[in-house]
This record gives sequence, structure tokens and C-alpha cells, in this order.
Amino acid sequence: MISVTIYNEFCHEKFDENVRKLYPDGIHNAIAKFLGENDDITVRTVTLDDEECGLTDDVINSTDVLIWWGHLRHGDVPDSVAERVKNAVLKGMGFIALHSAHHSKPFRLLMGTTCNLSWREDGDLERVWVTAPSHPIAQGIDTYFEIEEEETYSEPFAIPQPDELVFVGWYEGGEVFRSGCCYVRENGRVFYFQPGHETCPTFHNKSVQRVITNAVRWAAPVNRVSQLICPNVKKITTGIPGSHRR
Amino acid sequence: MISVTIYNEFCHEKFDENVRKLYPDGIHNAIAKFLGENDDITVRTVTLDDEECGLTDDVINSTDVLIWWGHLRHGDVPDSVAERVKNAVLKGMGFIALHSAHHSKPFRLLMGTTCNLSWREDGDLERVWVTAPSHPIAQGIDTYFEIEEEETYSEPFAIPQPDELVFVGWYEGGEVFRSGCCYVRENGRVFYFQPGHETCPTFHNKSVQRVITNAVRWAAPVNRVSQLICPNVKKITTGIPGSHRR
Amino acid sequence: MISVTIYNEFCHEKFDENVRKLYPDGIHNAIAKFLGENDDITVRTVTLDDEECGLTDDVINSTDVLIWWGHLRHGDVPDSVAERVKNAVLKGMGFIALHSAHHSKPFRLLMGTTCNLSWREDGDLERVWVTAPSHPIAQGIDTYFEIEEEETYSEPFAIPQPDELVFVGWYEGGEVFRSGCCYVRENGRVFYFQPGHETCPTFHNKSVQRVITNAVRWAAPVNRVSQLICPNVKKITTGIPGSHRR
Amino acid sequence: MISVTIYNEFCHEKFDENVRKLYPDGIHNAIAKFLGENDDITVRTVTLDDEECGLTDDVINSTDVLIWWGHLRHGDVPDSVAERVKNAVLKGMGFIALHSAHHSKPFRLLMGTTCNLSWREDGDLERVWVTAPSHPIAQGIDTYFEIEEEETYSEPFAIPQPDELVFVGWYEGGEVFRSGCCYVRENGRVFYFQPGHETCPTFHNKSVQRVITNAVRWAAPVNRVSQLICPNVKKITTGIPGSHRR
Repeated sequence: MISVTIYNEFCHEKFDENVRKLYPDGIHNAIAKFLGENDDITVRTVTLDDEECGLTDDVINSTDVLIWWGHLRHGDVPDSVAERVKNAVLKGMGFIALHSAHHSKPFRLLMGTTCNLSWREDGDLERVWVTAPSHPIAQGIDTYFEIEEEETYSEPFAIPQPDELVFVGWYEGGEVFRSGCCYVRENGRVFYFQPGHETCPTFHNKSVQRVITNAVRWAAPVNRVSQLICPNVKKITTGIPGSHRR
Repeated sequence: MISVTIYNEFCHEKFDENVRKLYPDGIHNAIAKFLGENDDITVRTVTLDDEECGLTDDVINSTDVLIWWGHLRHGDVPDSVAERVKNAVLKGMGFIALHSAHHSKPFRLLMGTTCNLSWREDGDLERVWVTAPSHPIAQGIDTYFEIEEEETYSEPFAIPQPDELVFVGWYEGGEVFRSGCCYVRENGRVFYFQPGHETCPTFHNKSVQRVITNAVRWAAPVNRVSQLICPNVKKITTGIPGSHRR
Repeated sequence: MISVTIYNEFCHEKFDENVRKLYPDGIHNAIAKFLGENDDITVRTVTLDDEECGLTDDVINSTDVLIWWGHLRHGDVPDSVAERVKNAVLKGMGFIALHSAHHSKPFRLLMGTTCNLSWREDGDLERVWVTAPSHPIAQGIDTYFEIEEEETYSEPFAIPQPDELVFVGWYEGGEVFRSGCCYVRENGRVFYFQPGHETCPTFHNKSVQRVITNAVRWAAPVNRVSQLICPNVKKITTGIPGSHRR
Repeated sequence: MISVTIYNEFCHEKFDENVRKLYPDGIHNAIAKFLGENDDITVRTVTLDDEECGLTDDVINSTDVLIWWGHLRHGDVPDSVAERVKNAVLKGMGFIALHSAHHSKPFRLLMGTTCNLSWREDGDLERVWVTAPSHPIAQGIDTYFEIEEEETYSEPFAIPQPDELVFVGWYEGGEVFRSGCCYVRENGRVFYFQPGHETCPTFHNKSVQRVITNAVRWAAPVNRVSQLICPNVKKITTGIPGSHRR
């Protein structure tokens, strides 16, 4: 059973009628709904206004994969929470950054770069192409899938070169974007996925749901490391019984 | 001084009026012309109909960077020539595969994959985006450049993940393609560049010329290895003078 | 259920008493024994002297992961068999190259390089260090494991940079080697593992057995592609029902 | 001309007689000496006790490559200075982290991981093997070089997988370490190099000097970006003169 926690800053949905129509219970609950239909996944949600963003030590320690959506209020996430998330990833927790979470504090800490890009809100069709057909995150997707309307994100995207590039997005207006990027950071797996603008029905798109579900299974830790250490060690003596070696 | 050899199968230009109009002296000479304007580059050209494709041991051994254009007659390049090219790359020669050279024998040997893709000839506008702005091959290019008409190549492109991805192409009709891909193969550098269809004036495009020129400088070998060996060696004795070690 | 086929050239075991003592039924059967103890793995073995090396279309098409051990008689594997193995990997079959299989035809075809290295037979202790602790292939291994006696393989190892480097070997006599290397080649996963010299009891080492078992599970295909193609395609019309787009 | 700034915390040299004997003017001046012998390199040095560590905006803006040595007092480098260094790297400045600088603030910010390792001070011989013979940083080095005495650093090393792995270190006592690691971070190049313990004469070793000199040339920026931005852009209109396109 994979324990997923979904963080949403839950802000636009409260003041913008257009967003509320699409996601009446918030983006977090829209994601929770389709993930919760899988027998191997349990879901919790937390939001910015919860104490410590809902991401206390207890919650983090019992989370296998953390999904992050935020946009307007990245700066209101306390640095201590961002560091806690980063450290949990380094110990093995999976992390999935959706759309505007490219600028979230934990993602930037993990990447080490600005994660800048260019953007445009014209409701372009996005066609998301698979560049790694055998990758677990691309399973169930044919050579591409379409999103009727998305915010356009454009290269150059200021990230470290992905360990694996799974998707590249094409936008009607003329841009491309590395839309699905995998990283290993110490013991944890990180996936960035471009789709998910708040004024678009992206999280109701079946292919988007499939990709996020696949990504949860991919990012779930094989094991969790309990501490991060930098030990002073003794010279090794061979552990081979009866060996004539040192 | 970088010694460049340009291989062109030189086939379409002979029977297709449209190609001949664009490249009256052949694609090889169109490339030779703009490369030859650089003080640090000398150029030779060879074609399929030359003996051994013009790629004799002498020519290969005195080539720093080999540029390859072919399309209709990949199968007519002798396996021995393809192996010779591959081995020269492994010893340090640079190799630039242009457009339909994705299916050339040397490129496939170096990649180990089919290098398949999907393609369409509708004269789409291609907008080539930079994904690695600080890469030497992207110097002088802003965030993107345009090609008025190109053959459309589409993902998935069946290549090993590039060591560095420098360009991604956007096509008017809805496709994307990893258009600029860098590899190191043993001691040699390999660059694949998508633009260059025979019925399009692509090699007259200033940005394309700049990229190919940059690629020549990037792919030129730091050094050349004389042999490829797999030696049986003796146990090492430390080379530190006066050392008390073994 | 993962269907594993183990190829062994089965040559040293027939003429060298020392090898026969260690592996009386051949290296293939030693590997088959420990793999066969897993409920999710079924095992077949084939050898060089079988018709087509035992690697007929039927066998290949029903193999999820092919393990390869060979040394003296790489050249006697027909090119057609090597090509068949390569193509199966590109379609999704997993491939595990053990020890001297660095020079096997299928591995070299998949890498595109010479796969040369330096070697020494002095029965050195090898200590194999984990460089990617969270990788599935390293599960159950602590920070390192030891092999009492191994053939020494030394850098430089003439391979493309691995997609993931899981192990680095230390040898008593002073060498290092990238001992565990992961690659994706089109739809298939490839793992190279250094240990496994024929005159050493390496395949009886519990850690080695664990790594090979882990690698089988890692390399097993998510899906299998039926053909390798390079299609001419039509311009895409959006598949979104009721869309006003093209 | 490449403008190099060398940062040294300059701490051990002041209180430890053994270190002072090896580096009477400090480690920074030992490095400055051999680098300064090159016609294409100019050198400045700064230390922790200088105002803002000597790394003011003016100094950073006129630095092509920053070399960093620190050990005891990483925590005393102000966060603002560490951020300034990180941002300069993202804009194109080269950064070379030597030895215990694996734990320096700028390196950790750029990597996004703990950069932990295991360590041992027994004065082991280190033999540094080349894993990428054609890499510019390995030029002038044969297959390996030796350091008579070094601090032992051991895997696992908690870094993102290097973009290019150039050296792997072997230690007499039984460990291995990825000793030469290259990264691109946005517009800047980063090189980590393991050798350089303060109680060892490592910076007097000719091979070490050669590697650091090579690394300076490799890390020097091709160009420098003036700002880091994330712009809202307009839909593109093709720039092709006379084009019938949008």
C-alpha cells in the first residue's frame, strides 16, 4: 500500500469562480479522487493554511509519495517545511511536482537551479509526446496524448538535465517544453509534470490521471533510510570467514 | 586547424530538379561553402560513388570531424566503411549526423538502437528551441530559431537518451522532436542534428549554418587514440619515487 | 512470472578441471539453481553448442530476461543470433551481461563501443561498493560486499556512460572498475555486472546471487513492443471530441 | 584570459603546524602559484576572514571560475554569500569544489543533496583512475595517477549522478570514491575533485595541479547570462521575412 499525501496551497479555488467551477473541492481533492480509486494507494490531503502546511514530522514520516501543487503563495511555505520535505526526499520519499510547483521551495531546493521558464496563458492545446515509451510512467499512454487547454510553458527550462526525460509538450502557439522529467536525489525519486493549470480542466483528463497514478507507483520508495550521516569510519577488515586477508 | 570531411550520398541532386535547384553542386558543397569561410576549418568532400565512399583509411585518419548526409542509399555504404567510421569515432574522430543520417549505418552502429522515428513531408515550419543555452553548440542562437520549411520528424525517436540534449524541434502540424543530441562514444563526440531535408533550403539558413559550425568545433577531438586494445596487465607497483609502498 | 533464459558458452567447464570443480553442471546451471528458488522466476538454459545457440525466435520471443555468460568463443556466436538478441532487447527484452560478456557480440552491438578494459588474473579480493543505494538492483546489499577471489578488471572501461551506475569495484592490487552499469536501449533494459570469473566461486556468493536476482526483476519488461518501425504518418487531427481545433 | 578566484577558509594553516609546513602561505596561495604560471589564467585569492568572505558582488561578477576549499568552518560562510555564489554559477560562472568542499554551502545548494560520504584519516595511498579518457579535464593524465597520502573518502557519496564521471579513486585500505564529477547547473559548470586534504602535500602533486588547471579551462564560461528570469511572454509571430505564416 502506497501512502500518498497531496499538498495544495488551496488559494485560487477560494477567490476565483472559474477555478472553483472546475475544482469545487480544490485541486487536492480532485487528485485524491482519482488516486483513491486504486487499491494499492491511500491518500491524504493537506493545504497551506494547515498548521505547518499540514506537513508535520508525523505526516512526512508516514508518507511514501508527496504530490505538490502551488502557485501564488510559494513564499508562504515556511523554509523549515521546505527543508523537511527536501530531507524526506533525500531519505527516500517520492516527490511529484505538478505544473507551477516548478517554483515551489522544495523542488527548487532539490534541483539547485532557478527552475525558471517562459509562460503564456492563451488556452493553447497541448499535445504531450512520449520520449521514453518503455518508462513505467508512460505505461498506458500511446505515442502522445492531448490536453484541450493548458497554460503554455516554454523552454529554456532552467533545470538540471533530467535523469530520464519521459514527455515533451507541444503547444499550438509554437513552444515546446520538457513536460515529464525524472530525477533521483540521494534515496528519493522526483518527477516533474508540466500539465495542471488551475483554470483548465486538466486534472479531469484521463491521460493526465494515468500519468500521475503511474508516477506515484514509480516514485514510491523501495526502502527508506532512517538518517543522513557522514561518518568517520575505521579501516575495513574483510568479513569473509577464514580469509587469509587483512 | 580542424580537418572536416563531408560525406554526401549525392543522389537526389542528380535526378530531382527541385533538389538540384536548391543545391546545384550537391548538399556536400553547400555545407563545405559555409564551413570553409572559417579560418580554423579546412574542408574536403566525398560521395557514395567515390571508391570506398571516399572514406579510405588515409582520409579517415586525417579527418578530425566527419559530417554525414545520406537518405536513399544507406544500404549501399559497405559495412567495412561503416565499421571504419565507427572505429575512428571510438578513437576520437568527431561525427555529425545530419537529418536522415539518423538511419545511416555508422550512426546506428554507434547508437546501438534502430534510430527509428515517424516522419511527414508537408513543408511544416520548424521552430528549433534551445534546451541547453550554455552549451557550446547553442552559442549565437537565442532561445529558438526558425526554419521556413522542413520535413517533420516525430517522437518517439528510438535513440539512447542523449548525454546532452541541446535542441528540441516544434513543428507546425503538431509534433516535437529531440533535434540536437550529443553523445560521447569512447573517445569520440557525436552530434545528431535534425534539420536538413533535401527539398528544403535548410542548409542556406544562417542559424543552421551556425549550429553546424559550432558542432564542428565541439566535436573536434582533444586527442586521438592510436589503437583500441584490451590488454592483459601486470599488477601495479607504485610509481612514487622512494615510496615505502608495494 | 518472469521468464529467464540463461546463455552459457559452456566451454571452460568441459576442459578445465578447476572450473568443473566449481561448476560441475556448468555456470548456466549454477545460476539457474539460485534463480529458480524464486517463485516469480522461471528459468531455461541454452548453450553455444545448441542449434542457433538455443536462441531461436521461439525461445527469444518467450524470454523476458536473457542472461549471458561467454568468454573464449564469443566469435562462434553467429551474427544472426547476436542481431536477434539485440533486436529483442530493443523491443523490450531485458539483458544481463555477466563478467567477460562485456565482449559478447550482443553487448557490443547494444553499446556501440569496443567495451575494452584491462585485466589481470591474480585472484584479488574484490570489494564491490554501492554507489546508488536506493536503486532496485542494490536492495539487500549494505554499503559494499566482498568476493574472496575475482579476476581484476580495470578502468578505463570503454562503454558509453551508464544511465545509472550502481556498483564500483575495488581490487586488492590497486584497480577500480564500474562493476554495475544500467542502460536503457530503446524499449529494453540492460545491466552489466563485472563479477563472475570461471575459476572463482563467484556464483556461489550470496551477495552476487542477490544482485543477479534483483537485476532480473529490474530488467523484466514493463511491456513488449511487437515491431520496430519508422512510419510515414499523416498530419494529426486532434482526437478531442467536439474540439474546435483542427 | 580566465579570471580565477580562489576561496580558502584559511583556518588549519594558522593553528596546525603540520598544515603550515606544507602550505606556509595557505592552501589558496599554493593553488594560486601553479595556476598563475599559465598565460591564459589570472588569479585572485580570498579567505573566510575577509569581509563577505571576499566574495562581494564586484569580485563575483569579475570571476570566471571560483575554486573553493573549506573544511572546519563551512557554517561561518554567510548564507547570503553562499546564495550569491550559487546564483553566479547559474548565470555561468564556473565552480570547482575541492576535497572537503563537498560539504560547503554553495556546493550543497547546487547539488540539492547532503553530499555526505564516509571518511578515514590513515594517510592511505590514493590511486586516481580515469574513467573518461577523452574528457578535457583528463588531458595529460595517463590511465591513472597516484597521490602518496590522502584522506580516504568512501562511497556511497550522496550526490546526484554526475553528468560526466571523469575519475574514480582507489584507496589502499579498501574504499572507492567518485573523485572527479562534472555537472552543468543552468548556465554554469561545476567540477568536484576529491584530492586535497590539508595534512597531505596533495596540492604539490603535479597530476593534481594538471587536473585543477584543466578543470579551470573546462569550467570557464562560454558566455555569461546577465539575469535569471521567468517571463510572461506573448504568442510568437514567425520572424521569417515575407513568410505566409502567422
